[in-house]
Amino acid sequence: MIFDLKLNNDSPKKIQIENYIKKLIEDGILQNGEKLPSTREMSLMLKVSRNTIINVYDSLSESGFTSTMQGTGTFVSGNESLPYLGNSLAWTSLINSYAKKAEALDIVKHEARSKRGMISFDSISPNKNLFDLDEFKRDFLNILSLEGNNILNYGYAKGYKPLIDYLKKYIGDKGIDLNNKDILITNGFTEGFDIVLSSITKSGDKIICENPTHNTAIKLMKLHDLKILGIPMENDGIDISKLEEELKNSEQAKLAYFIPSYHNPTGIVMSPQKRLDVLKLFNTYKIPIIEDGFNEELRYSNSNITPIAALNHSGNGVIYIGSFSKILFPGLRIGWVVADKELIYYLESVKRSRNIHTSFLDQAVFYEYLKAGNFNKYVKRAKKYYKEKYELAIKYANMYIPYTKIYGEGGLHIFIQVNGINSRDILKECYKKGVIFTPGDIFYTDEKGSNTFRLGLSRVSKKDIKDGFKIIGDTIKDFLMRSV
Amino acid sequence: MIFDLKLNNDSPKKIQIENYIKKLIEDGILQNGEKLPSTREMSLMLKVSRNTIINVYDSLSESGFTSTMQGTGTFVSGNESLPYLGNSLAWTSLINSYAKKAEALDIVKHEARSKRGMISFDSISPNKNLFDLDEFKRDFLNILSLEGNNILNYGYAKGYKPLIDYLKKYIGDKGIDLNNKDILITNGFTEGFDIVLSSITKSGDKIICENPTHNTAIKLMKLHDLKILGIPMENDGIDISKLEEELKNSEQAKLAYFIPSYHNPTGIVMSPQKRLDVLKLFNTYKIPIIEDGFNEELRYSNSNITPIAALNHSGNGVIYIGSFSKILFPGLRIGWVVADKELIYYLESVKRSRNIHTSFLDQAVFYEYLKAGNFNKYVKRAKKYYKEKYELAIKYANMYIPYTKIYGEGGLHIFIQVNGINSRDILKECYKKGVIFTPGDIFYTDEKGSNTFRLGLSRVSKKDIKDGFKIIGDTIKDFLMRSV
Repeated sequence: MIFDLKLNNDSPKKIQIENYIKKLIEDGILQNGEKLPSTREMSLMLKVSRNTIINVYDSLSESGFTSTMQGTGTFVSGNESLPYLGNSLAWTSLINSYAKKAEALDIVKHEARSKRGMISFDSISPNKNLFDLDEFKRDFLNILSLEGNNILNYGYAKGYKPLIDYLKKYIGDKGIDLNNKDILITNGFTEGFDIVLSSITKSGDKIICENPTHNTAIKLMKLHDLKILGIPMENDGIDISKLEEELKNSEQAKLAYFIPSYHNPTGIVMSPQKRLDVLKLFNTYKIPIIEDGFNEELRYSNSNITPIAALNHSGNGVIYIGSFSKILFPGLRIGWVVADKELIYYLESVKRSRNIHTSFLDQAVFYEYLKAGNFNKYVKRAKKYYKEKYELAIKYANMYIPYTKIYGEGGLHIFIQVNGINSRDILKECYKKGVIFTPGDIFYTDEKGSNTFRLGLSRVSKKDIKDGFKIIGDTIKDFLMRSV
Repeated sequence: MIFDLKLNNDSPKKIQIENYIKKLIEDGILQNGEKLPSTREMSLMLKVSRNTIINVYDSLSESGFTSTMQGTGTFVSGNESLPYLGNSLAWTSLINSYAKKAEALDIVKHEARSKRGMISFDSISPNKNLFDLDEFKRDFLNILSLEGNNILNYGYAKGYKPLIDYLKKYIGDKGIDLNNKDILITNGFTEGFDIVLSSITKSGDKIICENPTHNTAIKLMKLHDLKILGIPMENDGIDISKLEEELKNSEQAKLAYFIPSYHNPTGIVMSPQKRLDVLKLFNTYKIPIIEDGFNEELRYSNSNITPIAALNHSGNGVIYIGSFSKILFPGLRIGWVVADKELIYYLESVKRSRNIHTSFLDQAVFYEYLKAGNFNKYVKRAKKYYKEKYELAIKYANMYIPYTKIYGEGGLHIFIQVNGINSRDILKECYKKGVIFTPGDIFYTDEKGSNTFRLGLSRVSKKDIKDGFKIIGDTIKDFLMRSV
């Protein structure tokens, strides 16, 4: 309803209101069938007596502009002949190829989805039961007492200063030299990666990565219209000789993307020697590396693996993207990009142009949680919890699944290869039996990986791991028998 | 530090550890001057006795690989000749034109910034003292009790369902017909606008808007490489005949962007008749409209202005973007896009590709705050507060500023035109005197507006409004005198 009427003293209010409403109806601003506000609402709105409004409504009814249905209200009825105003468009033809590509690559929309009651190996989200809600509440109240309304108002594109300082220390402890480097806080890894690609690449540029690799990264590389060159994996990380060959023989790549510390989907950890080899190669060709710090924290080995960014010492050629999303509170969407100061200066402007900044409330609560020392306690608890599941998974895989190869050194998932199957056929059968997992082909940069699949363990009970693996194993055995 | 060493039983542990560290040094993984972990740390890490480590360190020292400084630690010293590993790049040449444009258009980086102690009219952020922190805490604890860990884990790209449902009701009450429409939650207006432009436009497309208009919108239109056609404003909104001329005479525009309800920077409210005229015109030409619902809530008039999206009834040609950022908690970054169902389906995939979803914690707290009825109370309080300031501002402007024209029907700011000045010259002088405001030219789509400026009132005390306006007025008078 439009009521922009300013009453004056030149004529009776009743007349002014009546004429105003008539004009709205004649102009089609009020449409046939539309309900007028009640006389009470209207009298409050216009600050005139209710009697005046009752008189107006009666008069409108009499002259055929409205009709009153007892107990229901007053409806516009006098403009049958007006053309329909609605501006209607055929959106399919207006949506551009970028949005259509985003939709086509959106696995949430196109892959089989888990349903209630199913055994779901399709997720690697953390198990929410590990979150300490009481601690989180305490941290929230603490930080709100400390910061007050500040964190509810606009903040800075780069991020919440105390969190940035905390992360500098955290990242410094990983051995990354922060001289001439800086940090940008983003809405998770995904945004960090998108902003970096947006700021460095252009359509048609070549990007080198592991094959298979993180499917969200593949989606974003494709959305940025990059030419993806996937390099095969070995047990200790990327195949260095294939990488070298690629660098030597093809036109210069713009960028590389690697997940050395806990590779998704295989769970492989790149060996120290290979990290060094990778760095030397990219140093020779002067190509920047994006290092995805994915789940570094959840590795089970006692050893600390140095990020490639740390091996690069004071060099500025590695962009490190971190996030605790797969460990802590993914619902909060917090990640960070560590890179050369100059690059961050530009990324900051891109971030500001896109959404001003990441929620300051989230950053502040997150900071308080980290500061209170809860993170280490949590990681310890989570590691223990996920380790048990991982070991169980290996045990049941050995018992039930006739695999060719199992990849992974622990964490939230295992990756399995079974020669002779197409994992999508297996998934189809398993789905009918109430089990779902992720077909491996979505992680491949080429058409490969159809004989692989990823089993996410984080949210599945021990019993369900056993039952689910048996169902998957039996389905595969059936399939292999039939295809002999 | 890298320690990926797996000890075996084939040789003494001391030897294995020593050889491993030597190799790290020889390979340059450990660099000259780098500190080794303390013997205590190392023994914990490798799960061997501390004595073994002391033996290893002694041996390394003896063979010249390290040197031990008493009380400080053990440092690598044996690889002087190794080449420097750091992969260093000249980022300036690697950053693309998009990121450079984002930086160039980043007013935070290029406009004069307010300093502590200054009278700052350069902000239209809400006054944080209006936020009810206790209420906010209560809402947070309530929703956390209700939702538990759910809201800390991954959510859905479209948004938090209860918030979406709440907003549907809220938007429905504005008269917007939601049949065949849907809602996407974004990180504020800015992200919503960016996602819509990303999904509909391509480089070189024409977009029509008011002139002047919201500077962040101008930035995004430029970043998307759109051809911006600004249509002049009249006292009751856009100049319809100029708009018609533009539509008639130039090649078809792809899109339009309007702020009808509380125009930024002028504060003008588009009249109902013009809303209808705009809609009819765009219906004729079949061009979609993006309607920015900016600050609809803070208007002072008793009347409810119908959004253009509501006038469009069941039509799908209007994309309405809303946000409470200038009213409530901008630090939380929550906005929403209301549009045709099919369009939202694609926007959802774009949103997911960029940052998975907006913080579920924020959405849930925000929802709880709205649901508890606090929003209406707050808006009432805020309106009263800002109205007082607005009226004071008009009074002092009349007293002190020799303006040609004042725009605005209340809200968080006024917009002033003074013929014969360049507001940047005035700003320069005022800045020296401790007063800052926003030069008007940043809101213009052409080279105009140099004789205008915006005065944000929301965070300035009454006394500072008086003092600041006097300084601005005196500076302008001086300037006009001198230039006669």
